Amino acid sequence: MNFQARDANFAARVASTYAKQGAMTLIGAELVRVDTGRVEIHLPYRDDIGQQVGYVHGGVVVMIADSASGLAAMTLVAADCSVLSVQHSTNFLAPAHGERLEAHGHVLKNGRTLLVVEAEVFAVRDGHRHLCAKLTQTIMAMAGRSEK
Amino acid sequence: MNFQARDANFAARVASTYAKQGAMTLIGAELVRVDTGRVEIHLPYRDDIGQQVGYVHGGVVVMIADSASGLAAMTLVAADCSVLSVQHSTNFLAPAHGERLEAHGHVLKNGRTLLVVEAEVFAVRDGHRHLCAKLTQTIMAMAGRSEK
Amino acid sequence: MNFQARDANFAARVASTYAKQGAMTLIGAELVRVDTGRVEIHLPYRDDIGQQVGYVHGGVVVMIADSASGLAAMTLVAADCSVLSVQHSTNFLAPAHGERLEAHGHVLKNGRTLLVVEAEVFAVRDGHRHLCAKLTQTIMAMAGRSEK
Amino acid sequence: MNFQARDANFAARVASTYAKQGAMTLIGAELVRVDTGRVEIHLPYRDDIGQQVGYVHGGVVVMIADSASGLAAMTLVAADCSVLSVQHSTNFLAPAHGERLEAHGHVLKNGRTLLVVEAEVFAVRDGHRHLCAKLTQTIMAMAGRSEK
Repeated sequence: MNFQARDANFAARVASTYAKQGAMTLIGAELVRVDTGRVEIHLPYRDDIGQQVGYVHGGVVVMIADSASGLAAMTLVAADCSVLSVQHSTNFLAPAHGERLEAHGHVLKNGRTLLVVEAEVFAVRDGHRHLCAKLTQTIMAMAGRSEK
Repeated sequence: MNFQARDANFAARVASTYAKQGAMTLIGAELVRVDTGRVEIHLPYRDDIGQQVGYVHGGVVVMIADSASGLAAMTLVAADCSVLSVQHSTNFLAPAHGERLEAHGHVLKNGRTLLVVEAEVFAVRDGHRHLCAKLTQTIMAMAGRSEK
Repeated sequence: MNFQARDANFAARVASTYAKQGAMTLIGAELVRVDTGRVEIHLPYRDDIGQQVGYVHGGVVVMIADSASGLAAMTLVAADCSVLSVQHSTNFLAPAHGERLEAHGHVLKNGRTLLVVEAEVFAVRDGHRHLCAKLTQTIMAMAGRSEK
Repeated sequence: MNFQARDANFAARVASTYAKQGAMTLIGAELVRVDTGRVEIHLPYRDDIGQQVGYVHGGVVVMIADSASGLAAMTLVAADCSVLSVQHSTNFLAPAHGERLEAHGHVLKNGRTLLVVEAEVFAVRDGHRHLCAKLTQTIMAMAGRSEK
């Protein structure tokens, strides 16, 4: 699907919002692509983001999927809008282990008040991507809400 | 609902699994209650787990809800079983801001292969709990899977 | 939770909306309770609502859960508002077989624009209720939308 | 994605299961395509499957999406396996109104015990398809379960 941004400055706006997400810094995630309706976040493997069997914690997987898809929504809303997560649902398809994870978020439905976005999370091992989770999220666009 | 643990030693087993979840240490979460079918995790507020408007990041909210409900499932499975998250869904009901968050996980359905668990996340402000998110998770019990 | 209706005439409004849901008539469902924030729908067993192993079709289970929880939301919105389903998620906990099914819908979060509602579906066998499914739904309240 | 059927006779097996789903007959749905990992169900518009504003009832939308994706799973399991719906989640993207609805189900993850499937539901108006809902479902494959 091809979408039009309402605000030509969307990439700077998304980067600025991302920089305020302390939780992304904490886990070592990196914003690597911002395009109309599409955002990509990478997460190099570290021991301290794991769970009991050495894979990346499911909550961390969701964290990058949530951010990538939420920011994908943000590329399409007006300059004075912030985005709020209403609901999300994630299916865990395969163990999240590899050199890094990649979350690829994209917009499925670009509504005025509500947007529906998806993210696929891939585990990269030996240079190959393996789909390990898929998230679907409902986002509300809120006019006139300023960030910290 | 009242459930019976299959393994009398469940509390030590859950605490040991929790201790291996590096991601929980990273965000500063604390395991505060382990009972049959019920687990509680607290998360004191810190700036580095936030998002752009100063609330706790939605992914972090999901992380503690996922752990509390997943470990609630673990209290009921046999000693040689590990638990695997198959799917979860979260509704965000109110902003996650306060002195701390509390995730209360409990088992809804205790099946042999699949368990369905829920977690409520409360934001505690001035000593009062405000429901801010609710997660539902499907868990698969896997016999004979050992942890790291 | 206790909620206040914005419109004292909510019960008649809900009954009128229900009467327009041809799909509810088609499957033989009955609206049996309408209270502030709570609605109950019953569905007597019939062969023609089944699936391949003789239980009630999962889609039919969802249909009554969707209606019960959506109408529970409707009890709380203003008189000129209609309600729109944004998203829902259902866990199937046990086979849906018995003399009848009962869907009990209730409101979890009563927001101005968005409401979050839940429904439990019970299969009634020999007079006892067995929980067989649980649905969570996000509802948008739309001002000034008239029905057919 | 390309999948291999474990049972060469999958199309006849799926058609036979579909024929036992009385609820599909009740609403007038038609099975129009069965391929490895893909199933398509069409639903011509009728007044008696509607809701209060004249669109197709959300529960009916879910019913055909649930069947199309569940049967897509069934194309891939062994001949003696039945499929059981564990959980599903649906986003409603646009009103379900048109000459007919089409549910296109496909397999996302083909696991041994669990399969994850998706379905897109399109409303067809003047010969054009409009995406109106998307469902994601978790399916459990159960060996040795016979149908009625």
